[in-house]
Amino acid sequence: MTNVARPLRLATRDAGFDAALKARLHWSADTDAGIEQAVAGILADVQQRGDAAVLEYTNRFDGTAAKSVQDFLLRPAELKAAFEGLPAKQRDALESAAQRVRAYHEAQKRASGESWSYRDADGTLLGQKVTPLDRVGIYVPGGKAAYPSSVLMNAIPAQVAGVGEIVMVVPTPRGEKNPLVLAAAYVAGVTRAFTIGGAQAVGALAYGTETVPRVDKITGPGNAYVASAKRRVFGQVGIDMIAGPSEILVLADGSTPADWVAMDLFSQAEHDELAQSILLCPDAAYIEQVQAAIDRMLPEMPRAEIIAKSLTGRGALIHTRDLEEACEISNRIAPEHLEIASHEPHRWEPLLRHAGAIFLGAYTSESLGDYCAGPNHVLPTSTTARFSSPLGVYDFQKRSSLIEVSEAGAQTLGTIAAELAYGEGLQAHARAAELRLKR
Amino acid sequence: MTNVARPLRLATRDAGFDAALKARLHWSADTDAGIEQAVAGILADVQQRGDAAVLEYTNRFDGTAAKSVQDFLLRPAELKAAFEGLPAKQRDALESAAQRVRAYHEAQKRASGESWSYRDADGTLLGQKVTPLDRVGIYVPGGKAAYPSSVLMNAIPAQVAGVGEIVMVVPTPRGEKNPLVLAAAYVAGVTRAFTIGGAQAVGALAYGTETVPRVDKITGPGNAYVASAKRRVFGQVGIDMIAGPSEILVLADGSTPADWVAMDLFSQAEHDELAQSILLCPDAAYIEQVQAAIDRMLPEMPRAEIIAKSLTGRGALIHTRDLEEACEISNRIAPEHLEIASHEPHRWEPLLRHAGAIFLGAYTSESLGDYCAGPNHVLPTSTTARFSSPLGVYDFQKRSSLIEVSEAGAQTLGTIAAELAYGEGLQAHARAAELRLKR
Repeated sequence: MTNVARPLRLATRDAGFDAALKARLHWSADTDAGIEQAVAGILADVQQRGDAAVLEYTNRFDGTAAKSVQDFLLRPAELKAAFEGLPAKQRDALESAAQRVRAYHEAQKRASGESWSYRDADGTLLGQKVTPLDRVGIYVPGGKAAYPSSVLMNAIPAQVAGVGEIVMVVPTPRGEKNPLVLAAAYVAGVTRAFTIGGAQAVGALAYGTETVPRVDKITGPGNAYVASAKRRVFGQVGIDMIAGPSEILVLADGSTPADWVAMDLFSQAEHDELAQSILLCPDAAYIEQVQAAIDRMLPEMPRAEIIAKSLTGRGALIHTRDLEEACEISNRIAPEHLEIASHEPHRWEPLLRHAGAIFLGAYTSESLGDYCAGPNHVLPTSTTARFSSPLGVYDFQKRSSLIEVSEAGAQTLGTIAAELAYGEGLQAHARAAELRLKR
Repeated sequence: MTNVARPLRLATRDAGFDAALKARLHWSADTDAGIEQAVAGILADVQQRGDAAVLEYTNRFDGTAAKSVQDFLLRPAELKAAFEGLPAKQRDALESAAQRVRAYHEAQKRASGESWSYRDADGTLLGQKVTPLDRVGIYVPGGKAAYPSSVLMNAIPAQVAGVGEIVMVVPTPRGEKNPLVLAAAYVAGVTRAFTIGGAQAVGALAYGTETVPRVDKITGPGNAYVASAKRRVFGQVGIDMIAGPSEILVLADGSTPADWVAMDLFSQAEHDELAQSILLCPDAAYIEQVQAAIDRMLPEMPRAEIIAKSLTGRGALIHTRDLEEACEISNRIAPEHLEIASHEPHRWEPLLRHAGAIFLGAYTSESLGDYCAGPNHVLPTSTTARFSSPLGVYDFQKRSSLIEVSEAGAQTLGTIAAELAYGEGLQAHARAAELRLKR
């Protein structure tokens, strides 16, 4: 049974469709009280004892035998050597991906991340100054989920934003380093790197220790301990979103080869059993073709067992009345990845309001976006695309309003401000405005 | 003693300055365990019982005797009537302020909030689509801290962003409505309004009830219960930053009248006892003038007691070696409001990296910015200006990446993506890219 994948079949025409869809989408972010308590303890300890605590927890959890936190420092030469030691094809792929991701984020910065200002008729200047964060921390998971592409996707937007220092942390259980991750750090412009992880690494970055510098923001994925630690230090430092399971939603009009769509569903499902792959299609015969492609291709897949569990446990093939209805349902789901497998993707794109990334047309497999098309692969999950955005240059910048009121401006504005301030009972606000009025 | 304000005197030359400054800046956001528990209970109850729970809690906490949540609905005609019932001067001030805030946020949208895309040489399209949130909730405190200006500052950026529905909640203890708040809601384009507040209002907006629609994001200030509730529903919906006490930092070269600077310090201090007002100045004689102005003007202030407590308990007058050093200390503090009270503000502005809003020159009192200059008065506090930004149009928009890979593009990108995917052990990702390669 492990090599059979049977996504749930639903049809919008059926009674009970809404409830069935809701049940299939359900995922709870509730965290374990035991984890919460452990993390609170570790953070408090790191805040109080700094390096000593980081050293102890790392040796204990990662099975290392370091004598000081200095031993966890990865020297720039080591990152460079890891890059140079890769097979040429991998090295080229990593560099090409980095170059494309950089070009995209540079365009993003030009489009939405530059300072601006204007002057009123009375000479008053108004605007916003956009500045990079001083120093950021990037969390990279170790072990089985160590993805060099995530290093690129987190570090490059920070580098393009102009962040002064990019500090990477990556746990290396039993001291085993992943050369692709180290090479990616080299290519992406990471400034400092430590082989530490877990809540202790998050604490070190948030509070600073004798050896690990305090950062202004922490981004990057991690396990339940890391997620809980990020939530707890939020406010002290900035954090990115806490990610839920990965999701793909494919809108299909039947014009894309069924094999391609089936493989795209696999590529989401192979991440983990909780990943969610959904197909929305008005063509019942095409849905059967996709299921047939799933049946045919699944046995070839090295990660067939995970794929089967994910598709059977959380996947769905949904028959809709038409593509308009499919778009409406997609908006309700607000998926992380949204493929428009249609011969006229630009007809449907304007109807799609909520998604982390939209992949248009048959040639745009999600995996091209995951690695090298250019846009970021860190995307909002679990319906949070209703209100949040892909990781971007803007996450490594902040804005300061600029206001320079001219003498003439102070006369007009002072009268308005004083009136409203008295209305709110804030007399010092009113007087401060009135002092600038000419008598 | 209550009418004497003695901000702490510090000089950067003194031994122990760093520690003394750190102690004065200290503020803890720790929340009360009792509040946490009460809020968790209220939220769970609202999620489960909807309207019935909202009705019970509101009647209990606000001393009302409503029969259904419908009774808490403020009809559009009531908002309009509140506006029309205001004295002409107040009405005009409210409209002028709204018009200026709207013009500024429209400029902000043009500068950084529009969709963009480009095509590669091989015809691949890359970009981002920017869309407004569907529906947002705006929390407006009731009672003594009911500020109509906050209604404008929260609702107008949402309206400019193009948010479909703006739902305001404002508690009205004992049924007492603040006509200025209702009028501001009318002017700012609030779509629906309910006289509910506290954790129960946050829960109603986050989960939706029979009468209160579920929103995608909740913004606006509130007491400890509201802050705790917002933290808890974060993830389910978006939230803005949790605000700490308000802060002003004035950099002075001695060219601005000392009375003006003293009144600006008052205008921050009058908010509440925890508000923080700091002056940084290299001119010792000028610092004395500011203290003398404080002594002279304080007795005239209706809120003298709060001002005195705030300035004495949390304020500081700091003598620096020069203005360069003052700028460096300001960056360390990352203040919410930063006034450059200098005759050459543009000389110092480039040195200032972290601040919510920067007020340049003698005429730019913070209070003009609070009400009507145009920029938003919802700003990052408690050093979070290191990594976060003023509330803006961008908080009511989200982005979706757009990727349309051409057939030619799929050949180049497919090879790169497959190489990296195999390197990460994600074979379905690799195969999905390879299926698009021409054989």
